[in-house]
Amino acid sequence: MAKEKKLVESITPRDEDFAQWYTDVVREAELCDYSSVKGCLNYLPNGYAIWELIQADLDKRFKETGVENVYLPTLIPESLLEKEADHIEGFAPEVAWVTHGGMERLQERLCIRPTSETLFCDLWAKTVQSYRDLPKVWNQWNTVLRWEKTTRPFLRSREFLWQEGHTIHATYEEAEERTIQMLHVYEDCYKETLAIPFVSGRKAEHEKFAGAQDTYTIEALMHDGKALQSATSHFFGSGFPDAFGIKYVDKNNQLQSVYETSCGWSTRSIGALIMVHGDDSGLVLPPHVAPVECRIIPIAQHKEGVLDRSFALLDELKKAGYRVKIDDSDKSTGWKFSEQEMLGIPTRIEIGPKDIEKNQVVVVRRDNREKIVVSLDEIAVKLRDILEQEQQDMYDRANEFLQSHIDTATTMDEMVEKFKANRGFVKACWCGDPECEGEVKYATGGAATRCLIEDEEMISDKCIWCGKPAKHMAYWGKSY
Amino acid sequence: MAKEKKLVESITPRDEDFAQWYTDVVREAELCDYSSVKGCLNYLPNGYAIWELIQADLDKRFKETGVENVYLPTLIPESLLEKEADHIEGFAPEVAWVTHGGMERLQERLCIRPTSETLFCDLWAKTVQSYRDLPKVWNQWNTVLRWEKTTRPFLRSREFLWQEGHTIHATYEEAEERTIQMLHVYEDCYKETLAIPFVSGRKAEHEKFAGAQDTYTIEALMHDGKALQSATSHFFGSGFPDAFGIKYVDKNNQLQSVYETSCGWSTRSIGALIMVHGDDSGLVLPPHVAPVECRIIPIAQHKEGVLDRSFALLDELKKAGYRVKIDDSDKSTGWKFSEQEMLGIPTRIEIGPKDIEKNQVVVVRRDNREKIVVSLDEIAVKLRDILEQEQQDMYDRANEFLQSHIDTATTMDEMVEKFKANRGFVKACWCGDPECEGEVKYATGGAATRCLIEDEEMISDKCIWCGKPAKHMAYWGKSY
Repeated sequence: MAKEKKLVESITPRDEDFAQWYTDVVREAELCDYSSVKGCLNYLPNGYAIWELIQADLDKRFKETGVENVYLPTLIPESLLEKEADHIEGFAPEVAWVTHGGMERLQERLCIRPTSETLFCDLWAKTVQSYRDLPKVWNQWNTVLRWEKTTRPFLRSREFLWQEGHTIHATYEEAEERTIQMLHVYEDCYKETLAIPFVSGRKAEHEKFAGAQDTYTIEALMHDGKALQSATSHFFGSGFPDAFGIKYVDKNNQLQSVYETSCGWSTRSIGALIMVHGDDSGLVLPPHVAPVECRIIPIAQHKEGVLDRSFALLDELKKAGYRVKIDDSDKSTGWKFSEQEMLGIPTRIEIGPKDIEKNQVVVVRRDNREKIVVSLDEIAVKLRDILEQEQQDMYDRANEFLQSHIDTATTMDEMVEKFKANRGFVKACWCGDPECEGEVKYATGGAATRCLIEDEEMISDKCIWCGKPAKHMAYWGKSY
Repeated sequence: MAKEKKLVESITPRDEDFAQWYTDVVREAELCDYSSVKGCLNYLPNGYAIWELIQADLDKRFKETGVENVYLPTLIPESLLEKEADHIEGFAPEVAWVTHGGMERLQERLCIRPTSETLFCDLWAKTVQSYRDLPKVWNQWNTVLRWEKTTRPFLRSREFLWQEGHTIHATYEEAEERTIQMLHVYEDCYKETLAIPFVSGRKAEHEKFAGAQDTYTIEALMHDGKALQSATSHFFGSGFPDAFGIKYVDKNNQLQSVYETSCGWSTRSIGALIMVHGDDSGLVLPPHVAPVECRIIPIAQHKEGVLDRSFALLDELKKAGYRVKIDDSDKSTGWKFSEQEMLGIPTRIEIGPKDIEKNQVVVVRRDNREKIVVSLDEIAVKLRDILEQEQQDMYDRANEFLQSHIDTATTMDEMVEKFKANRGFVKACWCGDPECEGEVKYATGGAATRCLIEDEEMISDKCIWCGKPAKHMAYWGKSY
């Protein structure tokens, strides 16, 4: 009983202290924890299994667009990192340096990659010669390291898991198209697989990736009203590859520049899952990324026939392709329910002597706790429908939250008022000057442009801060 | 034509210079190449795709035995690496050290993991308390770094891709059983998926993994008669976890030690695939790990209807679940055949105007160049049979080679003679003294014990070198 009490009380209520709630859920659901290396995480089975499902889904989407996977080294020579000026300026302050190999001091320092544009360009400079060698549409699943000062599980850690896509193309247009295509792949995965809605678009000039010409971003809204930059796609033009001397001979025997893109999606997405869908009982996982879609919990399992029938059901559901487990431990039923909820398992099946008598089970959805009585004859089919409905409902609910947290402002008074309530995104117009953005940020207690809105009519022709002609309309928000 | 000539002539004949042949195949099949960081590889699409198939196969086998995947950090604090004496002695000379993070000098050096036993034990020391927390049967897919002096693609490089399994158990017996179980998983994967036969068994005392009580190995035989240590499974007893202070409270409330295992399989396995199955025309991939199982090559593709019918076939085979591609480039047919062979694609389908007239295609197997005429009505079914037959034949052929390259020796004269011909494995008995092994190694030009033979009657009761009572019979061989 002592432990049962602990499970219920171990989570701070979400609306009382969101940051503490987040930390509690990560800990109690055993998703990850800090290792002995400051700022680096141990990704535990419950957390890593979510990542594996995200990976599988995203990798499939990539390959449908022609992406090939590769693996390039963990280490980058200092001279290589320095080849593109903006890039080194952006990353030098936050890399880890290897200075000794075995017993010897190295002649040149090597950094652990913070991102791999330089390695890809170095490889292509040596291997790309002709138009026949283009395009290269590559990706790698790996970890990168950035020497962050403050860290939070999944959201910001020194080492994190991600994929980084890197491509080069013969023309500007093709590369630009690929940049947008990868943004769309990310959007589809966020929406269909993670059940997370978002706003998306181009980043303001000063918010671009180090060395990029354009950066596109997906900005999801967390339950506390803060935005999370959730995945990014970058267009480099030919500047970056030119710095590495990548050239190709076209069909007319002319030497040409190539055009580059890169894109990245990290384990941050697990943080988004927690903060968009979680509740006071713990994690709530969308079925598509739930390592266990259903946990069978036998009721009064000591009674004759209950465990037998439960295990028969387990087999049946496994054969039907479900990710399903059974909890036949000696814990109390109440504890089992709490644990299934804490882990965010999308459904539990309660099966007891009376259910068996009536040839039925009770399916309980995690997201809304709806109880659905299903005939044992139909469960292997109906469970899929229930899970799909839950997936859809979770998206709809999150989207309703997002849409009801997008406001507009044409004056600073409005802007400040909206952000006082920590209300999510606010659409407002802006002259494009980072100094004006800085003033707005100060006045609102942290709200900055998250991305530009380029497909809607501007709601004002003046910058919300300085009153000069507005160049952009943008989503503004506080962020992680 | 210039390029066509190059393709044919670009590979050194295998029996003329095996090492050069290997390098040529790796290069021409574009599997990997060296990066700007000395001794570190770029794994290119053709090579990495093989690794992805191996990973998927092995991961499925792991999970069937209850393995859970995790991810622990890349970096290990020096003090942690030093906790187990044998382990640090084995690895200290070959690790890379991080001394600076961002702009700061670190207070303690961090090494890039050469293997992760210390990280797993550190985590478990903090989290394992009760018998309820056991066993832990974990695995991670990652890269490790060892500062090797001489390197060869896939066989030995400073950074390499692998999986490392780590488990702890409540009893000695359970851990020992897991050690053997993982060896068996490896054996099954080598045999069924890579079509590679092997000998396997326990390593001699002085050949064990640093810190292990027992190491089990799979030793495959390459075409040049040298053995390749292909995967290993280690039993640590309780010594290693004791050094980290991992203890649990058993059902009787007594504090107990845990028993540990680890196991590893790396991209070396790609080297084995090349050296066991490859031939003078390039790579020969077993269908189960071939990224492309079949390449369709239209004959006289400019003639009406050929490309249409070829693409219809491509669609049909894709829908039937084959990994299939088409080569409709403007290269000559001879070049296309050479390229398909170089890449080791297990089958090509030749389809020309006459074939279409007769409603048939010609399937050509890569391994033995057998041509099989198949009706277009049946190809989607028959191709699977052809591929499965090829997979089986490749194993049988490699096994015949292995079995015909296992000899026995009871005298040093015999031993020396067998190894003069570079003939593979020789069974011989041994007192267990590393010095005797050293003498044999010198006399034979490099043959040492590869693994002990513990389930057969000993062919002699004397050590082949010193004549003292034999303690072991072993497979001896030269090795990579």
